[in-house]
Amino acid sequence: MNAVARRPTLAITTGEPAGIGPEISIRAAWALRAQANCVLVGDAAFLSMTAGAIDPAIRLSAVSLQALRYSGLPHFGPDRIAVVDVPLAAHVVPGQLDADNGRAVLDILDAAIEGVQAGWFDAIVTAPLQKSTINDAGVPFSGHTEYLAEKTNAPKVVMMLAGSPGEHQPYLRVALATTHLPLKDVPGAITQDSLAQVLNIIDHDLKTKFGIAAPVILVTGLNPHAGENGYLGREEIDVIEPALKAAQARGIDARGPYPADTLFQQKYLKDADCVLAMYHDQGLPVLKHATFGRGVNITLGLPLIRTSVDHGTALDLAARGLGLADCGSMEEAARVAMHMVQARRAHP
Amino acid sequence: MNAVARRPTLAITTGEPAGIGPEISIRAAWALRAQANCVLVGDAAFLSMTAGAIDPAIRLSAVSLQALRYSGLPHFGPDRIAVVDVPLAAHVVPGQLDADNGRAVLDILDAAIEGVQAGWFDAIVTAPLQKSTINDAGVPFSGHTEYLAEKTNAPKVVMMLAGSPGEHQPYLRVALATTHLPLKDVPGAITQDSLAQVLNIIDHDLKTKFGIAAPVILVTGLNPHAGENGYLGREEIDVIEPALKAAQARGIDARGPYPADTLFQQKYLKDADCVLAMYHDQGLPVLKHATFGRGVNITLGLPLIRTSVDHGTALDLAARGLGLADCGSMEEAARVAMHMVQARRAHP
Ligand SMILES: [Zn+2]
Ligand SMILES: [Zn+2]
Repeated sequence: MNAVARRPTLAITTGEPAGIGPEISIRAAWALRAQANCVLVGDAAFLSMTAGAIDPAIRLSAVSLQALRYSGLPHFGPDRIAVVDVPLAAHVVPGQLDADNGRAVLDILDAAIEGVQAGWFDAIVTAPLQKSTINDAGVPFSGHTEYLAEKTNAPKVVMMLAGSPGEHQPYLRVALATTHLPLKDVPGAITQDSLAQVLNIIDHDLKTKFGIAAPVILVTGLNPHAGENGYLGREEIDVIEPALKAAQARGIDARGPYPADTLFQQKYLKDADCVLAMYHDQGLPVLKHATFGRGVNITLGLPLIRTSVDHGTALDLAARGLGLADCGSMEEAARVAMHMVQARRAHP
Repeated sequence: MNAVARRPTLAITTGEPAGIGPEISIRAAWALRAQANCVLVGDAAFLSMTAGAIDPAIRLSAVSLQALRYSGLPHFGPDRIAVVDVPLAAHVVPGQLDADNGRAVLDILDAAIEGVQAGWFDAIVTAPLQKSTINDAGVPFSGHTEYLAEKTNAPKVVMMLAGSPGEHQPYLRVALATTHLPLKDVPGAITQDSLAQVLNIIDHDLKTKFGIAAPVILVTGLNPHAGENGYLGREEIDVIEPALKAAQARGIDARGPYPADTLFQQKYLKDADCVLAMYHDQGLPVLKHATFGRGVNITLGLPLIRTSVDHGTALDLAARGLGLADCGSMEEAARVAMHMVQARRAHP
């Protein structure tokens, strides 16, 4: 197979149409067209109009889902972006949510999942969506990640954020043992079982999707100073340490628990492939600070490769017109997905 | 008064003698001798021997506590470091804790406090100590900060860490609403009353000790995404927002609550004087990551200026000999204390 055909094929779901998703999807896909075969999933007419307003040089070619099902993804060279047409129900006013388009946002996701399962796409890169648009359309929906897990029968998924803190610092990957929980519910949600599952998923995915032969995972404590030998909480002694010992016995190189406040220093990070933080605000402030808004969200534990931006729909920005949104995180999300596809191909 | 006499006089308590405290105290004092009148507090014979081993050029002059009480701090020029002699009870073996010296470590602190109250010193800069040495000497002791608060009758203190994340980024100050508590006890410890006290102290000290006329304080939420309108916890709605409204009514420019994961970005930080985080591991990982181990711990709410390193005694490093410890955080702690003394002098 030639080099062009081996370019990873990424499905980029354009997300909430009234947000910055369509713009950043188009700009990222166009920027990366030489390295990846980017396929936008969304309303072709709307995306075509948006692309024309961003830069008349951008060339899109639409294909219908029916055509894909019949004959697979046609070949597109690196001079254009393919679009899988998933029509919206209502006219889009940037910045204004419209529940009439809620169903289409889900259809976009469904098309991307179908395409990965059918082998049209190697990975999914998702632009932000607005949960409320979908819920207001009468479909219960708690989030991108949960939806993907359910549709692909993944028993558990792990949220990881990754990014580069600049040239001279080690690449940073932070996974979370718990995600969107009220803080008071965090200690109870961390059990030896849940940590075992999380560590298995991280270790497995770092090997198979990132091509890291012997991943090193540094694990934080739950309490300040990792509990200071029990003086500041016992979860480290009662839960985390036994979970780490058990994981080590399964051949997983998970180390800790370490105090979260001192762990994020170059001297520790330089030898690690991933930090596992116990909860959202223990791991993400440092990741987002360090990566200057160019962090990438990666869902581990799915039977497919999925990356995503680390920000929201920015409706206010979208309302003010095109050209204001930063597509850095989206571009980075596509780039990470690309590397993951290549690493998976290389995996024996 | 001439410029030399106006150099701020800093009491540097040398902390646990078996740790790196003596070395980093001496090196920081010597490095800053032109800008500050640094007075080490500790065992004069031991410090003199240590200084000689670090660099024979370092000149120390000892003075007894009795002499200070009788005639105040004598004038020392910028060519030497003064030492207030507080004798240890036992010979020091670097890296090995000795409860026989526990009482002397406390005597060092007492001398520094006495000296500030007597007007000999403008501020206290503390090297790390080992709580267990003092406890093992039979004196109940829960920490530097708590001890200073009790001795100066401060009803409440606030821990703040500060540092520079490099040339092109705003100076970072992070204060904590709660400090060394097990995570499960954090939500219950944050009340409208406690936040009112914390915000009053931060606002007051930023004005009087940092010379910031109209401080802007950005406040995080307790829960991920600052509770996402109650979907991820109600503490923002029930506790934090009312506390901020009340503080604003008292003339304090406290804003938020903001999601902690996105708050620590230059676009928000550049207009802020301080971030108030709700708990230890929400605020400190990013501060310590960003400041590369050169963070400074500042105790707000005391009737005196006190800064400190942001690391521990590093007994293992001390055991391996002199010359290995990084005195960056200690030097920075002294420099911040110096600036605070100057800001307080300028405060009307
Ligand atoms: Zn601490
Ligand atoms: Zn989140």
